[in-house]
Amino acid sequence: MRAVLHHGLRDVRVATVPDPVLIEPTDALVRVTLACICGSDLWPYRNPTSPDEPRRIGHEFVGVVEQVGPQVRTLAVGDLVIAPFMYSCGECEFCLAGLQTSCVRGGFYGAEDVGGGQGERVRVPLADGTLVSAPVGQDDPRLPALLTLSDVMATGHHAAVNAGVGPGAHVAVIGDGAVGLCGVLAARRLGAERILLLSSHEDRAAIGRAFGATDVVAERGDAAVQAVLALGDGRGVPHVMECVGMQGSWDTALGIVRAGGSIGYVGVPNGVHEGLDLSRIFRRNVTIAGGVAPARAYLPELLTDVLDGTIDPSPVFDLELPLEQAPQGYAAMDERRATKVLLRP
Amino acid sequence: MRAVLHHGLRDVRVATVPDPVLIEPTDALVRVTLACICGSDLWPYRNPTSPDEPRRIGHEFVGVVEQVGPQVRTLAVGDLVIAPFMYSCGECEFCLAGLQTSCVRGGFYGAEDVGGGQGERVRVPLADGTLVSAPVGQDDPRLPALLTLSDVMATGHHAAVNAGVGPGAHVAVIGDGAVGLCGVLAARRLGAERILLLSSHEDRAAIGRAFGATDVVAERGDAAVQAVLALGDGRGVPHVMECVGMQGSWDTALGIVRAGGSIGYVGVPNGVHEGLDLSRIFRRNVTIAGGVAPARAYLPELLTDVLDGTIDPSPVFDLELPLEQAPQGYAAMDERRATKVLLRP
Repeated sequence: MRAVLHHGLRDVRVATVPDPVLIEPTDALVRVTLACICGSDLWPYRNPTSPDEPRRIGHEFVGVVEQVGPQVRTLAVGDLVIAPFMYSCGECEFCLAGLQTSCVRGGFYGAEDVGGGQGERVRVPLADGTLVSAPVGQDDPRLPALLTLSDVMATGHHAAVNAGVGPGAHVAVIGDGAVGLCGVLAARRLGAERILLLSSHEDRAAIGRAFGATDVVAERGDAAVQAVLALGDGRGVPHVMECVGMQGSWDTALGIVRAGGSIGYVGVPNGVHEGLDLSRIFRRNVTIAGGVAPARAYLPELLTDVLDGTIDPSPVFDLELPLEQAPQGYAAMDERRATKVLLRP
Repeated sequence: MRAVLHHGLRDVRVATVPDPVLIEPTDALVRVTLACICGSDLWPYRNPTSPDEPRRIGHEFVGVVEQVGPQVRTLAVGDLVIAPFMYSCGECEFCLAGLQTSCVRGGFYGAEDVGGGQGERVRVPLADGTLVSAPVGQDDPRLPALLTLSDVMATGHHAAVNAGVGPGAHVAVIGDGAVGLCGVLAARRLGAERILLLSSHEDRAAIGRAFGATDVVAERGDAAVQAVLALGDGRGVPHVMECVGMQGSWDTALGIVRAGGSIGYVGVPNGVHEGLDLSRIFRRNVTIAGGVAPARAYLPELLTDVLDGTIDPSPVFDLELPLEQAPQGYAAMDERRATKVLLRP
């Protein structure tokens, strides 16, 4: 079958790899209907250090179950399924607590003998605990929206939950990538009254407005902090969603958060080198919460809302390519010519 | 009147200073019955940089109202009052939200024209919003216990609240100073089932056990982390209370906190120089919450429990001195010969 392999710095290629097979009795084989490229895939893509050998990549996909192991109980061949970006058992303490990303048996796609999501087929471990069926056909127009539940919409929701967003909340969203934009949609869904989106790209800001942003702040750095403060009473915003993971975005978050407020953060902190200065949060009782999003925990409720049309996160996809053109998709996201790229095997 | 003045590095002196007078119509003058030395008073005491001129110091006291300004409505001359370690208006958004430490009109004792708490009398600004009356006489044996509500007991409680401690919780308390010990008491009061106290001082550990610690870990550094992990299932403790504010104590906190857990922190981060490494909390969804404790918010409920005997934090005081001997009290705490020192004017 065909799949994307990461070779090194700005070097991904589509190649023929062995078809996956069932290994564990709890596995399922999924034929990928739709996959996509994640902002976090750009971290290895931009890393000057090459892997020892080309590695499978990708962790967001929807597809059709082709085979199930003998211990799989809740899935049947032919089911259309959504794969959260990590697999998890569904039975351990952490899974039961809704923190499937800390599952004691779980893990990432594209590691060891688990293939990446950017390919024609994926062996999904712990299929019962991992995959979520959706009552739709493989040509359903809502498939791109459902695909966002693999990661970006769930991650935006995680930022909102951890920022303490609820009805009437005043919120600032830092980051106009797919996660930040989904964060706007998540905040609106949770009842936020005022949603400031920090975005200096007009095309992305437009999606943000459509998703519910009430204000867009185009400034950057200190000017962004001043602009956000000026939009309120000068004391900052109680609910800040950090959806970037860079030093500058954290500086902004700390600059705009209100005393007693919360920063819900989901940006992989690969670009944060200085460490969080506790003295900036101690005096003002700022809470820092978040991390890698347990997409599996949020999938059922978000799925319901996608199916009934309450939310449609699919506008975050602004480029669709066949799987064979994945390298062009990576380049487009790397060069910020695309927000998020769909890949169709 | 007599009061403690901070002159410089390990140099505090008791001197005669002008009696305070009412300045604002919302002031009260309080004759101090009992004061004490805080671990945070040791930060300036140990600071090689001297203040430009000798400064009043101290922020924990109970006393008797001697005079009130014409706009004070809730206090009367003769009331026995407890002073939280910051003053606050009681009316602004932050005060109403229970975050009096961020009061827009509030501030610290020992700054500008507000005297320190280690003296015979204090002008208390915003008296209605700040002071809490207790229905006891000035010779009541519970006065030391009530004095802890000024700061250390309220601060230990803040750590517990921010660590998410509730009935049945498994908790680790880092720090066997007065705040850490009060944190143990607060965790037990909130219903914690298992309370690990990290303490390498047997006398302090004994107080911790009396306050409710179920286990004491005497190791330090990495050995402490391993010991805590070994006491459980190896995956750490969900509720960690950081009551020190040093690099080493934060390293321990990050090493023992369970995935999905919370670090409630109240140690003034004066000894944390590296900044919090977000990559250590991102993957495991660890929440960091806390800061300077709104003692005023917690005072009424804790006061009730002290008065009815539910809690008695007074064992944290292990040395009592007359105000004139405050320098000896500072030295005793600096040299760890005393946990917390009472000063009686």
